[in-house]
Amino acid sequence: MIIINKPNEMSEKIKSLKLQGKSIGFVPTMGYLHNGHMSLIEKARGENDIVAVSIFVNPTQFGAGEDLDSYPRNIERDEALCKEKGADIIFAPQSVDMYPKGYSTYVDVEGSITRGLCGASRPGHFRGVATVLAKLFNIVQPQRAYFGQKDAQQVAVVRRMAEDLNMDVEIVSCPIVREEDGLAMSSRNTYLSPGERMDALVLSRSLFEAKEMIMSGKRDASNIKSHIKSGISGVKSADIDYVEIVDADSMEDLEVIRGRVLVALAVRVGKTRLIDNIILEVE
Amino acid sequence: MIIINKPNEMSEKIKSLKLQGKSIGFVPTMGYLHNGHMSLIEKARGENDIVAVSIFVNPTQFGAGEDLDSYPRNIERDEALCKEKGADIIFAPQSVDMYPKGYSTYVDVEGSITRGLCGASRPGHFRGVATVLAKLFNIVQPQRAYFGQKDAQQVAVVRRMAEDLNMDVEIVSCPIVREEDGLAMSSRNTYLSPGERMDALVLSRSLFEAKEMIMSGKRDASNIKSHIKSGISGVKSADIDYVEIVDADSMEDLEVIRGRVLVALAVRVGKTRLIDNIILEVE
Repeated sequence: MIIINKPNEMSEKIKSLKLQGKSIGFVPTMGYLHNGHMSLIEKARGENDIVAVSIFVNPTQFGAGEDLDSYPRNIERDEALCKEKGADIIFAPQSVDMYPKGYSTYVDVEGSITRGLCGASRPGHFRGVATVLAKLFNIVQPQRAYFGQKDAQQVAVVRRMAEDLNMDVEIVSCPIVREEDGLAMSSRNTYLSPGERMDALVLSRSLFEAKEMIMSGKRDASNIKSHIKSGISGVKSADIDYVEIVDADSMEDLEVIRGRVLVALAVRVGKTRLIDNIILEVE
Repeated sequence: MIIINKPNEMSEKIKSLKLQGKSIGFVPTMGYLHNGHMSLIEKARGENDIVAVSIFVNPTQFGAGEDLDSYPRNIERDEALCKEKGADIIFAPQSVDMYPKGYSTYVDVEGSITRGLCGASRPGHFRGVATVLAKLFNIVQPQRAYFGQKDAQQVAVVRRMAEDLNMDVEIVSCPIVREEDGLAMSSRNTYLSPGERMDALVLSRSLFEAKEMIMSGKRDASNIKSHIKSGISGVKSADIDYVEIVDADSMEDLEVIRGRVLVALAVRVGKTRLIDNIILEVE
């Protein structure tokens, strides 16, 4: 496994691999890897000649007052984990090389996909996500890029961008990986105190309850959202950011649950903002 | 020479050419080709295995009330000209295939490069330009893309975008091609009545005078702009949109003329908006 820091060195390396006819699978991450990331690397390993993992805490997707500076980092541990899973290349650029002086270009995905959910709570977040992924895709030139469904809205944004801008990359979405007790894996779980860690179970528990309600035939979205909200409100350290039920592709609000449906929520537990979701196919 | 209309067919064709190790030179145009375009195709022909010309009147770079509907079109003549100059592929997509239902993604170059000149007169214009070129570059995957210096601000925008988004393409700027009497070639010259055609010479004449003033040692930008403006004001059918002297790369306003300097103007002659410019290297 090799580690590359400079964007132009990464581009050159990729070019020489493509000239050899190698297929590239790409796992973009912000590092501090957990089992969710591991599942993406494993999936990429099975489908491509070369697996490239990027580790870059992208400043443009953080808003003012968000956790850019405190976001957990541990590059040595990340390297060991990538090596263990059989990655071939780690691309770990510096901010100053990704956004040098005079940097001016941004990619926006507009409309329903970015209007609600995290797009509403975190203005500019998806602009930063789309921009950095456009850059990374141009550098890494992957056949396939792997994303966790935990960031379901991010997956919808990147799919839309790739299709709209005629990018030659397949976007692969992989299931959420959970702790044994149901908590969705996240680098931000490390922020939680032991008490908050317990309280945070209300996210997945609410979603599993919603799933049961829908499976048992309930189709009224506002009814199910109310149920979820009242469950979360019962937990003292938990503060709801949003609870939404939307079309899983367009992210448009649903009143009646039908089709490919995303039930998504964001909850602040103490000072830590956590997200979780489920996707259901409903007739 | 082959003609391709569908973006996915173009992508497939390009992929097979790249697998054969061919280099691609790309000339993006809005059609109604003139000798300016011909010079780009010739230059591309000399530097690449394959020359691809796109012909697409891009709706997203036209503002409300602009000449999208009346923009001159003659695809048969364009095809004959491309063939004559040795182009290999014409890519002539339909709007509905470039911007299908649900299209949502735009590329913005912010800051001084797009703030003034045509960016100020035509809000959204460069957003449309950057977006369509991002799409076209992804479809055509060129090693080199050729642009006329007549659209000097466009060249600065696309250079900035390509560098910022790590696109693997060299942006080649080619000199303005003029009619014998000095008028810069433009598809829009066809709008001019015979009287307006005479009046339109004030654009190039003003620029040549400005060049002489600068060459003779004058360095005060506002003085030279005043001289240009008073010349244009003497022509009854001419209405100044802007006259600017800026840094040729950053497009930042200059008070003192020094470095790589762009003297650029936009003038409405009758109903036709024309642009022209000169770039000078000044010690």
